Amino acid sequence: MSITEQIARRERVLGSAPLFYKEPVHIVRGEGVWLFDIDGKRYLDMYNNVPCVGHANLLVVEAMQQQMGTLNVHSRYLHEGILDYAERLLDLHGDALDSIVFACSGTEASEIALQMARYGTGGRGIICTDAAYHGNSTEVAKMSLISRSKQVIDSDFRAIPFPQTYRPLHAGVAGPELTQLYLNEVQAAIDDFASNNIPLAGMFVCSILANEGLPDIPPGFMSQAAELVHTAGGVFIADEVQAGFCRSGDWWGYETSDFIPDIVTMGKPMGNGLPLSGVAASAELVASFRSNTRYFNTFASSPLQAAVGMAVLDAIEDENLLKSSAQLGDYLRSELKTMQHKCNAIAEVRGCGLFVGLEWVSDRSKKTPDREGAVRVANSMKEKGFLLSNAGARGNVIKIRPPLVFQKDHADLFLTAFDEMLGEI
Amino acid sequence: MSITEQIARRERVLGSAPLFYKEPVHIVRGEGVWLFDIDGKRYLDMYNNVPCVGHANLLVVEAMQQQMGTLNVHSRYLHEGILDYAERLLDLHGDALDSIVFACSGTEASEIALQMARYGTGGRGIICTDAAYHGNSTEVAKMSLISRSKQVIDSDFRAIPFPQTYRPLHAGVAGPELTQLYLNEVQAAIDDFASNNIPLAGMFVCSILANEGLPDIPPGFMSQAAELVHTAGGVFIADEVQAGFCRSGDWWGYETSDFIPDIVTMGKPMGNGLPLSGVAASAELVASFRSNTRYFNTFASSPLQAAVGMAVLDAIEDENLLKSSAQLGDYLRSELKTMQHKCNAIAEVRGCGLFVGLEWVSDRSKKTPDREGAVRVANSMKEKGFLLSNAGARGNVIKIRPPLVFQKDHADLFLTAFDEMLGEI
Repeated sequence: MSITEQIARRERVLGSAPLFYKEPVHIVRGEGVWLFDIDGKRYLDMYNNVPCVGHANLLVVEAMQQQMGTLNVHSRYLHEGILDYAERLLDLHGDALDSIVFACSGTEASEIALQMARYGTGGRGIICTDAAYHGNSTEVAKMSLISRSKQVIDSDFRAIPFPQTYRPLHAGVAGPELTQLYLNEVQAAIDDFASNNIPLAGMFVCSILANEGLPDIPPGFMSQAAELVHTAGGVFIADEVQAGFCRSGDWWGYETSDFIPDIVTMGKPMGNGLPLSGVAASAELVASFRSNTRYFNTFASSPLQAAVGMAVLDAIEDENLLKSSAQLGDYLRSELKTMQHKCNAIAEVRGCGLFVGLEWVSDRSKKTPDREGAVRVANSMKEKGFLLSNAGARGNVIKIRPPLVFQKDHADLFLTAFDEMLGEI
Repeated sequence: MSITEQIARRERVLGSAPLFYKEPVHIVRGEGVWLFDIDGKRYLDMYNNVPCVGHANLLVVEAMQQQMGTLNVHSRYLHEGILDYAERLLDLHGDALDSIVFACSGTEASEIALQMARYGTGGRGIICTDAAYHGNSTEVAKMSLISRSKQVIDSDFRAIPFPQTYRPLHAGVAGPELTQLYLNEVQAAIDDFASNNIPLAGMFVCSILANEGLPDIPPGFMSQAAELVHTAGGVFIADEVQAGFCRSGDWWGYETSDFIPDIVTMGKPMGNGLPLSGVAASAELVASFRSNTRYFNTFASSPLQAAVGMAVLDAIEDENLLKSSAQLGDYLRSELKTMQHKCNAIAEVRGCGLFVGLEWVSDRSKKTPDREGAVRVANSMKEKGFLLSNAGARGNVIKIRPPLVFQKDHADLFLTAFDEMLGEI
């Protein structure tokens, strides 16, 4: 069946479900950092964070087979696997996060975190950024503004301009003064809630502002924003669905961005492809959530989630992926920075760990975002056998985010091809 | 580690997550309809609908291992597995349901269905029953009234008394007249939305009213309610998360309850334990949902979901589980009815297919619900090695819902033990 026929068939049964690339790829096999299409063409995966320990990772496949062949039931029976996994995961966080609720998707984790913040504080108001994405349920979509019109923002949510140094809130302002400008926005949101008699529940942000486009965050913003929120009676929620599990070069993005959250959501790479997510918080916040909601999730906290989640942690530790995420990410950024000389379109090389963002512009002095250019780069690199994408508030940030098992020789293959592509476009 | 110690450890890391039974069971292994605890004690599973083709089903384990060892990526690349699965699943529904959106959990399916109904009709108002459960997200919880106070119902939702013959809306009314009384409630909800300028989106019900307690539904109620909703511009949504996949003795609960839905949600047994859910509807409704939401779910529509979902359908068909669900369910009900003579507590033996509900009362003439009695039965049967539970609007309905691979000799083991238990309590 041709690609065109397959797209038509897909449209018939799934509707206009999103697809990548001008000519989509038809992937049939994966192994480590490699994906193979139906014609045997090999692609270096520079996009997928879910298979963090590699496509078809043996440890994960074995854990899944072993557990599914032994037992997989819901969580209203006792099972030690989920307790072992929960304790190991919580040990990777600070002492303040000592309890956890499991779920299946990032959206479900965001739902739990929202409800936990609201029940825990007695408030309703949530501050988010104006280009965030936290999921797709009715309530969570209200703070997923990257896919919404800002005009429809719900009365219980306030969006602040996402903090960044590249296009600062006021032109020419930098450093601590810029931090203060963004903090003023947080305070204004808090004050606006107060004047509308909407008690604050908290602030909800991705620790590294991934969907916003991985901006350099003005120094101290996150920790000082958390202070403002605490002073006003709210909690600070870190969305680690993209940032977590060594992606940022630290175990958690909140370490990279230097703040301490009250609630942490986790997802995507957590099960290397098995639907698995979770929300860590203090025992008090979890207790309040539990008593107010009687929350139960048929598929979560299961022996299968525990076994697979554990295998992912094993693989990350066995293969030293924390260290290699930090080192190879720095290597990629440093090499990509040398390419800025010959390519004016690359206005900034940003990111942390194995998560790189390239700000793609048509005019560097005017900082004119070039979304079409970024899309062309993604399509051109795909033709060369490298899968990446574009993202960010303006869609003009090239998003490079390979599985964590990515190695230096993979980086060099990519850099050579990327350099070649720059000469062609 | 003792049960007490394990409960304390669980409380520390998971908070007060719900547990079954006065003394919870510590299950370590499953096979077919059997579960085994850490001491090797064997339990006949009379509760779990998720492992519909049996605990540790080989076809499912193999499909999972095979697909996870080959490829598992998100759905923005082409993959034929999900199209094959989607088409096969849609073929099991009527022609009007020709498009599908996949997700991970029942809650996510309910969210999609809600959003689809609202975007598709331009309305907001949703009619549900007063003892429904459709999931736990902020919006879906508003129509999950079995776990909420009726007083907090949101302005966009109206709850009608769930239709039943056992405790009819007006004492002494039965047959078509009773159906009309419940239809009047639907019409009143429609009228109330209209008078509050809330345009109707639709009505959302479990096809067999499982959480309500599997009542006998007054004849014709569902199809006539759907007509009223259609006339008022709404859509009729069947929650098949519990009812579907041969549970009711038909492929779908809406066949058993004799109506044609516009939107169908599916979940629980769909992946035999892999998080997998979906929403089937007309191409028009799916298109409207897609264009309004740009919905994407990281873990859904994946090669893994497709392979496992397909293996479940294979197992259901290979083992003729549709037929055996209908036959063994009837056998169970007929044998249990004979026990009503010696046990006044069993006021009604209800249900469809392998889903049996026993209305447990302390006084049969006054129909006094006896929740504590039902809980005692569940605990007593657990001690005898049979896992079941209590459910329903008043918590007094004994819920018997074994995996579909349940056979006649299992039924006889259960019936003997149940009869024995009746003599003891």
